[in-house]
Amino acid sequence: MTTPYLSLKAFFEPRSIAIIGASRKPGSLGHMFLKAVLDFGFTGKIYPVHPSGEVILGVPSFPSVAELPEVPDLAVIMVRRDLVRDALIQCGEKGIRHVIIITAGFREVGEEGKKMEAELVRIAREYGIRFIGPNCMGLFNTHPQYRLNASFSPTQPLPGAISFVSQSGALAVAVLETANRAHMGFAKMVSVGNKADLTELDFLEYLGQDPDSRVIMLYQEGLDDPRRFLTLARHMTPEKPVVVLKGGRSESASRAAASHTGALATPTAIVQGMYRQAGIIEATGYEDFVFTAQAMAYWPPFSGKRIAVVTNAGGPGILAVDALARAGLHIPAFSPQLQNRLRQLLPPEAAVGNPVDMIASATETTYAAVVEGVIQSGEADALLIVIVRPPVNTTGRKIADALKPLFQRNPKPAGVVLLQEWDADAGISVFHDGNLPVFPSPEVAARAFQQAAEYYAWRKTVEVQTQSPSPSSPSLPVSNETLVRNADPRSGVVAPERVLDLFLHVGLPLVPYQIVTQLADAQAFLAEGHTPVVLKLLAREISHKSDVGGVQLNIDTPQKLQAAWEHLARIHREHRISSPLKVLIQQQVTGQREMILGLQREPGFGPVMMIGWGGILVEVLRQVVFRVWPFTAAEAMRMVEELPAAELLQGVRGMGGVAMEKLTEIILRMGELGTAYPSVASLEVNPLIISNDGQHLWIVDARMVVHTNDTSGNNESPS
Amino acid sequence: MTTPYLSLKAFFEPRSIAIIGASRKPGSLGHMFLKAVLDFGFTGKIYPVHPSGEVILGVPSFPSVAELPEVPDLAVIMVRRDLVRDALIQCGEKGIRHVIIITAGFREVGEEGKKMEAELVRIAREYGIRFIGPNCMGLFNTHPQYRLNASFSPTQPLPGAISFVSQSGALAVAVLETANRAHMGFAKMVSVGNKADLTELDFLEYLGQDPDSRVIMLYQEGLDDPRRFLTLARHMTPEKPVVVLKGGRSESASRAAASHTGALATPTAIVQGMYRQAGIIEATGYEDFVFTAQAMAYWPPFSGKRIAVVTNAGGPGILAVDALARAGLHIPAFSPQLQNRLRQLLPPEAAVGNPVDMIASATETTYAAVVEGVIQSGEADALLIVIVRPPVNTTGRKIADALKPLFQRNPKPAGVVLLQEWDADAGISVFHDGNLPVFPSPEVAARAFQQAAEYYAWRKTVEVQTQSPSPSSPSLPVSNETLVRNADPRSGVVAPERVLDLFLHVGLPLVPYQIVTQLADAQAFLAEGHTPVVLKLLAREISHKSDVGGVQLNIDTPQKLQAAWEHLARIHREHRISSPLKVLIQQQVTGQREMILGLQREPGFGPVMMIGWGGILVEVLRQVVFRVWPFTAAEAMRMVEELPAAELLQGVRGMGGVAMEKLTEIILRMGELGTAYPSVASLEVNPLIISNDGQHLWIVDARMVVHTNDTSGNNESPS
Repeated sequence: MTTPYLSLKAFFEPRSIAIIGASRKPGSLGHMFLKAVLDFGFTGKIYPVHPSGEVILGVPSFPSVAELPEVPDLAVIMVRRDLVRDALIQCGEKGIRHVIIITAGFREVGEEGKKMEAELVRIAREYGIRFIGPNCMGLFNTHPQYRLNASFSPTQPLPGAISFVSQSGALAVAVLETANRAHMGFAKMVSVGNKADLTELDFLEYLGQDPDSRVIMLYQEGLDDPRRFLTLARHMTPEKPVVVLKGGRSESASRAAASHTGALATPTAIVQGMYRQAGIIEATGYEDFVFTAQAMAYWPPFSGKRIAVVTNAGGPGILAVDALARAGLHIPAFSPQLQNRLRQLLPPEAAVGNPVDMIASATETTYAAVVEGVIQSGEADALLIVIVRPPVNTTGRKIADALKPLFQRNPKPAGVVLLQEWDADAGISVFHDGNLPVFPSPEVAARAFQQAAEYYAWRKTVEVQTQSPSPSSPSLPVSNETLVRNADPRSGVVAPERVLDLFLHVGLPLVPYQIVTQLADAQAFLAEGHTPVVLKLLAREISHKSDVGGVQLNIDTPQKLQAAWEHLARIHREHRISSPLKVLIQQQVTGQREMILGLQREPGFGPVMMIGWGGILVEVLRQVVFRVWPFTAAEAMRMVEELPAAELLQGVRGMGGVAMEKLTEIILRMGELGTAYPSVASLEVNPLIISNDGQHLWIVDARMVVHTNDTSGNNESPS
Repeated sequence: MTTPYLSLKAFFEPRSIAIIGASRKPGSLGHMFLKAVLDFGFTGKIYPVHPSGEVILGVPSFPSVAELPEVPDLAVIMVRRDLVRDALIQCGEKGIRHVIIITAGFREVGEEGKKMEAELVRIAREYGIRFIGPNCMGLFNTHPQYRLNASFSPTQPLPGAISFVSQSGALAVAVLETANRAHMGFAKMVSVGNKADLTELDFLEYLGQDPDSRVIMLYQEGLDDPRRFLTLARHMTPEKPVVVLKGGRSESASRAAASHTGALATPTAIVQGMYRQAGIIEATGYEDFVFTAQAMAYWPPFSGKRIAVVTNAGGPGILAVDALARAGLHIPAFSPQLQNRLRQLLPPEAAVGNPVDMIASATETTYAAVVEGVIQSGEADALLIVIVRPPVNTTGRKIADALKPLFQRNPKPAGVVLLQEWDADAGISVFHDGNLPVFPSPEVAARAFQQAAEYYAWRKTVEVQTQSPSPSSPSLPVSNETLVRNADPRSGVVAPERVLDLFLHVGLPLVPYQIVTQLADAQAFLAEGHTPVVLKLLAREISHKSDVGGVQLNIDTPQKLQAAWEHLARIHREHRISSPLKVLIQQQVTGQREMILGLQREPGFGPVMMIGWGGILVEVLRQVVFRVWPFTAAEAMRMVEELPAAELLQGVRGMGGVAMEKLTEIILRMGELGTAYPSVASLEVNPLIISNDGQHLWIVDARMVVHTNDTSGNNESPS
């Protein structure tokens, strides 16, 4: 369900706000909350609601919502859990249409809370109320026209260009604390709590259209509607960077996350695939999350990966280079021309390659001159400036003052690693005025550079790529009904000959094969020059053919073929297989590189494509790559490039580079085939063998499972 | 060269100190330095030396060293570079034997500086002076009996149990700043600068014996004497944790490090192998370095990997679990008994599994009760306590006050992730009084837990393991002289038949082979049942046998053998090989797992052993593992366990687990063989093929290179 922009706007831009549960008791939530609203300087009217009708913090309160002198644009409920229902009804009766429910103790505490939460939703629907929460921290908007801090955050935010949607109120508080230390500002923040009505997706959609929000931060635990998330994010990310921190990536944490918000656990690898597909910047940890978002808010697009490091301290400069190099960035040695120029600005003890080590005596003038020289040279796409508290002559603040005009005149992706107490001398706020993000360590800075470089490289490809893939629908030789009717009624497994037939029909590259029932036909196949061949016994009763000797390899003479045939016939008898003997004869192909490909329907996600290495490689390169179907050929190529040890596809050890267009074609055809039939639950190719010259890709075995009447039904989400 | 303990003690515990170059000019180094000494409250006598003889900062100065009223225990020189030589001579003449040279501009700036530095060393030797520097930041000792801050650090250190040796003065300043913010204290610190006389190794040795230094931090760029480092560290680490941050790990940074201190670049993988061998805790980055050291100073030994997470904030708790799980630690679900007990302490909205989410209303009493409950249960080996600034009821400081007695009574590996401004309310110093390290993010905390758990697991094995491996010396069939005489005079390559013979002699498992010159002998070999066989043409002139068809595979009949023989004979003729036809016939063995092993002599390190994956695996598992020879069987086992995807050795995909004792035996025999001959430059086995059942390990090919008169000579360091 899509929520209109204007409907959410009222949450952030109310002219009046009722605080139901405001309290005179210092230390209580109702007291803190009102104090936060007042302290932050809300520009609208404030109506505390408290049964006593007393004056709270200098503001007259009202004994009930009904008695308020006007209908406020927004109400915040923070009364005891058992009083929330009535408060919401009172809001509805009064005509209030936007409510934040702070109170906790609903879905997250079990069945009873779940029922109470459902009742809140029912009431809201009845009155046409949209609400945030319950179990949330509220929201804020730093815009000077509103200055609304409707949250119980003990920390007041600074204004800025970042907006933050959080599934955890406490994480929002933590981020605010870290941000304040770093003098990092926000436009808007909202904590969505239990998401009984409005969800993080509604706010993502809203912030996507909000001109004040130039970078979006999102802390996400469970994904309720991945398809909608993907669609939304895809529209936003080519314009606005979206930085996501996903909580519950590990198994242990996902157990905790489920109990935290009652959210459904989602396979981490699928979520990561979806993030990449959506152009999301996924943070790897807490500091990465905060400081990458901060950098994205200041930096213009990156044009490349060459980083210059300018430092007043040798060791920290070297650590910065180590961290940047590990993050995949380049630290090019400077040209003799540039080195000469820098040499003239610096004492003889300084180093002028890259990093530029200006040594401890560097003043603010030295910093400014060297940084300007590097910028003018065009030899770096971005700059990392390292400052260890200068022993003499200057301070962080003076350096900030000297650098600020440079980056105001000439915006550039540049950041500062500031290795000193972030105190009054440090100049943090001045760096920010100069669009220079400040980082607490070389490693956190390097990660931000890496994320930014990868994001902008991706954005360039998006500009030339179709955003809405519309896959072709293959013409199909059998109907969905026939497919289901002929599948194994219990397992849903489709007969291999049917699967091979479908593959052939849509043009997927099968290894040459034939289904035979007579030895003579097999001999004829061998005689056609398909040598060596492999024989596989086809029988529904035998699921693991290899284990019982049902697969016969390396057959290159009629004698061997006959022996193998007789062997299969004996197994067929011994296992008392009711259907007549049926054998798959295939040309045996070889190649050191094997892959697996799969399409499966995942709850919420719908069809999801997976690729990975096969054969022995799967044991050492277990990581597989996911994408939500459908997607374009360019996206299929990114999938392939994300494989671990993807350089194996380029050709190594005498093997040729793999014909990539053939590989991506197979991925797309599989997606089309798997989704052309609504009943397909999963489709798997294992193995796809790549010839050592890289030019031939053969599907050797495939498996298709459909939902039948006996199986558990279609898991696909309504979308 | 070993430096006596007492000789270095005088640097840290002087009763009097001369400051040559002290200055009245505010902002100058000579002014700042004296001010730091005074401010920190040095307990001994201070003699500023300045030509004017004026009073500086209230302390009378002396016009020259000669005029000092006594011979000070320590002198610090910070005069202009061209005056350093004379100052050092004056110290010598006066009888001063301990000097710190702060002044920069020596070896690090090129040839002239190098010469001047050599002159300082010469003067010091003449007078029996030991000195630190030049180009260093000085040292400090926080012991109340001395309170010496003889450094130009703008930051005064707090007292504590950590001592820090730094190859970069600026990095020491940065660490001090970060440490002060975290209320982390130090016993001693020394910045070694250019290490013209005393090196980080001298100070490591000293601190190893210093009872006040319970944890050692070391920032290292170049390694001058890796063998001595290894010996030293091996003696220290079973008692004292040594945390090392290595600068210059990337190629770009290693270029910078060389110009920074003129240090020799060392292959990173070898250094890492040596660190592991020495029981060193290697930090992965700046914050890891500081906060792991801090944790090691407070924590008693870890007994296991089970971590309990206790939090007042759901999201941050989940991030902590994610980070811990990624770091290889376990976050076990608590028993029903413990959950019941915790349930009684907490409101219904709380979660009592693991993490324990006490929600935002948790007070200091809740923290203390829950933490105590978890400790008493014995269900966790360590605790991570997460605190997001509490909105009401309590503060970080109150929580710290409540937790402190618990950890004073009952020391436990436990730490705090404090997600709020580290201000007066945060209680940082109180946490420290309670032996609770405070971390800035869940990820930094998780890394410290990981490092500590791995270190203490290692320490357990060390206690039962021989510390000084003394490899057996194999009896040798030929002398070193014979080996060298018979090697190729230009390349130093030893003839394959000789190498195989040596391998056989020391009991290394060669695949069955024979060197033959007649087809009849080859046929006899085949007839013995070694089938299939492979033929390899032996000829010094042909270095890449495979490329010219000099390797013939899959020979299983006399006919095929004859054809292959004739093929090799033709190549022999075509390449005009002067020596008679000589062929290596080997049984052809197969196995999906192949390895490479190597021994090489590295400058400074001496013999170094390497193991890695071979065959196609080397393309995807490139990381190899190094150890400095000699080492024990237990260490060889650790090497093997450090291989990437080491689980391949356990047996997967129908392959059996590898006979590990055979593998480690091969590693040790190779080390013994390679070092029994002083002339061996390198010895390589490629491949070692492991049979699929894991029981047979066959050396298929080996290569030995010796130093001959024509080659560059023995690179091994004198040790």
